[in-house]
Amino acid sequence: MAERVLRFHFDYISPYSYLAWHRLQRFASEHALRVEVKPTLFAALLNHLGHKGPGEIPPKQRYMFKDCLRGAALLNVPFEPPATHPFNPLAALRATLLDMDEATRQRLVTHLYTATWARSLDVGSPEVVAGVCAEAGVPDALQRIADPAVKARLREATEEAIALGVFGVPTMIVDGELFWGTDSFGHLERYLAGDDPVGPDDVERWASIESSAER
Amino acid sequence: MAERVLRFHFDYISPYSYLAWHRLQRFASEHALRVEVKPTLFAALLNHLGHKGPGEIPPKQRYMFKDCLRGAALLNVPFEPPATHPFNPLAALRATLLDMDEATRQRLVTHLYTATWARSLDVGSPEVVAGVCAEAGVPDALQRIADPAVKARLREATEEAIALGVFGVPTMIVDGELFWGTDSFGHLERYLAGDDPVGPDDVERWASIESSAER
Repeated sequence: MAERVLRFHFDYISPYSYLAWHRLQRFASEHALRVEVKPTLFAALLNHLGHKGPGEIPPKQRYMFKDCLRGAALLNVPFEPPATHPFNPLAALRATLLDMDEATRQRLVTHLYTATWARSLDVGSPEVVAGVCAEAGVPDALQRIADPAVKARLREATEEAIALGVFGVPTMIVDGELFWGTDSFGHLERYLAGDDPVGPDDVERWASIESSAER
Repeated sequence: MAERVLRFHFDYISPYSYLAWHRLQRFASEHALRVEVKPTLFAALLNHLGHKGPGEIPPKQRYMFKDCLRGAALLNVPFEPPATHPFNPLAALRATLLDMDEATRQRLVTHLYTATWARSLDVGSPEVVAGVCAEAGVPDALQRIADPAVKARLREATEEAIALGVFGVPTMIVDGELFWGTDSFGHLERYLAGDDPVGPDDVERWASIESSAER
């Protein structure tokens, strides 16, 4: 089977993207996918769309945590309350974009997710992030994430996500086709198998619907 | 098995709630649930939360329609482009709250959903809604939905939903526990079977997380 590329757009702030990352490990290997990690600043997506994240809507945040507890139990993944939420994920996202080989980068993603959603560490703190980086074999992160070139990488990665149509995290993209959320693995699996029921004709028929009401 | 009540909070504007309504028919019968239909004005939830619906965010709307096409194919449910979207669902929601017996009300919900998401009728039009009502055995709807008492019923139903913690549609509630979205049937099924992994201790541990960042 030819290797296909799956872009994984995520932000550590999102517990759904933590669960999706766990699930993706086996899924990618079963489907011969090469995963490219794409750190994406969720807050910038929300600013761009004039939208709110679930962590900013109290009843939705309460539901999200329960929903993720349920999902984590099914996946048999540890899931513990984060130190704070929402928190500032900039240091963690920038650290993920430092120069390193891809195997290290993916290990670092797992370490930073685990720090956030299983170890209750304060990943909003650059010092904590640097400590996790050191554990994952990425030295001197505290100095390196302050480099304007690294900050620019995250801005560019986020702009690239927006240009691809990403509106939330996690989003998985294969051949330019988006699959959003931890519940989309089934649709993605059928897409990979050539069994996607959505064809170009459908996309066209559904593209031209006009609004007849505004709030 | 004792009959349990499931509150189905929905708005015709939501294609996800259309799919959930279809799926609920067999689910309710398999699990001996008595369904109470709860028309809820999604726009009022969004106003209350300062939030946007997926139909108001272009890349999310495009994704939603594809996602629902995929879901409809799996459920073997017809799914056709609505006449317009977003549209004004007030007439359809108010019609659903007219005085009628419960069997008729549930039939009317199916007719109005089918009109919107399978027949491409303009359900934003009170005249179209009245025609669908007549087909479902609900006469004189055009006059009756203009009654201020009927308008008040929808306001009260929506306020009740907000008080119960509803933040989106569809939301299914059993014993005060919310299950949001078409993807939540699995969690609901485990809840009904007494296998919900979320206990009161979890809820308490996750309730006290503080924010450390704002946009």
